[in-house]
Amino acid sequence: MADKAAPDSTRRSERSRRAIFDAALALVGEVGYDKLTIEGIASRAGVGKQTIYRWWPSKAAVLLDAFTAGVDDYSAQGLPDTGDLAADLKSVLRATVDEFNDPAFQAPYRALAAAGANDEELSRTFVARLMEPGIRVYTDRLRAAQETGEVADGVDVRIATEMMLSPFSQRWLMRTGELTYGFVDTLVDQALHGLRPRG
Amino acid sequence: MADKAAPDSTRRSERSRRAIFDAALALVGEVGYDKLTIEGIASRAGVGKQTIYRWWPSKAAVLLDAFTAGVDDYSAQGLPDTGDLAADLKSVLRATVDEFNDPAFQAPYRALAAAGANDEELSRTFVARLMEPGIRVYTDRLRAAQETGEVADGVDVRIATEMMLSPFSQRWLMRTGELTYGFVDTLVDQALHGLRPRG
Repeated sequence: MADKAAPDSTRRSERSRRAIFDAALALVGEVGYDKLTIEGIASRAGVGKQTIYRWWPSKAAVLLDAFTAGVDDYSAQGLPDTGDLAADLKSVLRATVDEFNDPAFQAPYRALAAAGANDEELSRTFVARLMEPGIRVYTDRLRAAQETGEVADGVDVRIATEMMLSPFSQRWLMRTGELTYGFVDTLVDQALHGLRPRG
Repeated sequence: MADKAAPDSTRRSERSRRAIFDAALALVGEVGYDKLTIEGIASRAGVGKQTIYRWWPSKAAVLLDAFTAGVDDYSAQGLPDTGDLAADLKSVLRATVDEFNDPAFQAPYRALAAAGANDEELSRTFVARLMEPGIRVYTDRLRAAQETGEVADGVDVRIATEMMLSPFSQRWLMRTGELTYGFVDTLVDQALHGLRPRG
């Protein structure tokens, strides 16, 4: 009996976790971070709020785990390495364009970013848990490109990553421009080749 | 008599405008955008709230004018053009590092950026009135550099500007890194020379 009970309970827990994550992401997109409550998440997920409090101390903790569940897969994979740095960067950034232009993805991420602009602790956690792992897959790929000679030795790979990712993030967050394949392709080409004439 | 009254009244108006701008910038930094009120600004500035309502329809309008009063001077000047693009970009970005590391400047700007992340209309006005003029002085300078051959013909100067300004803005807004002279110098060098080895 004990052998059977454990996997059932694990499956049930996993289903509840998934339902709580989905509810938290949907709700924060609808009502914003300030009005998000544990009660609201519990009700939407169809679980008791004690279930949530047993696993997480706060709504911020639930949300960060909900976002991180997606990011972890991505970080574990890393960026493709076909030996063609420009092509690899463009293919990942184009996929990110599709993701950020999806309204279902937009709303919760924007709510969290907005809350972070006012709340320094939330922002630091958000950056450490969500942004830094995303940045690291780029710096890893650029470092690999340094080894094969596609990127010059002296390049600061962290700042190089910011030159490609920050314009993307800012267009999205501040709505300063469209996120298109053409935009990210130009970003990659200009970052790799530089603004000065070559030759 | 009429000849004397007009300049006095203009001077008085100008003093009131200045007091209202200073009060709005100080208050939004202290209490945040959501809790900022016309009453609060009037009281801090030592004017009646009708004085404010006579000139501006909303707190957002007061704030934007208060910020823009500073930005207009900067935009009118443009970037220096000594004929050395790298040196010109670094000198302006280093001055901007000093400005953004100044707590008196920080607080109101951050409050407005945070409010804009939640409020699309405010964000669009904020971008059009404050960010776009700042971006334009860079695109103008890069276009001038294209004419002298310091920047390659095919370069998209808008995206080139974002490659230098967005990493700066994001480090500041999301607190993802320090704003230092070394950071902006590397940003300029990597943008101009590109990540690929030269030669």
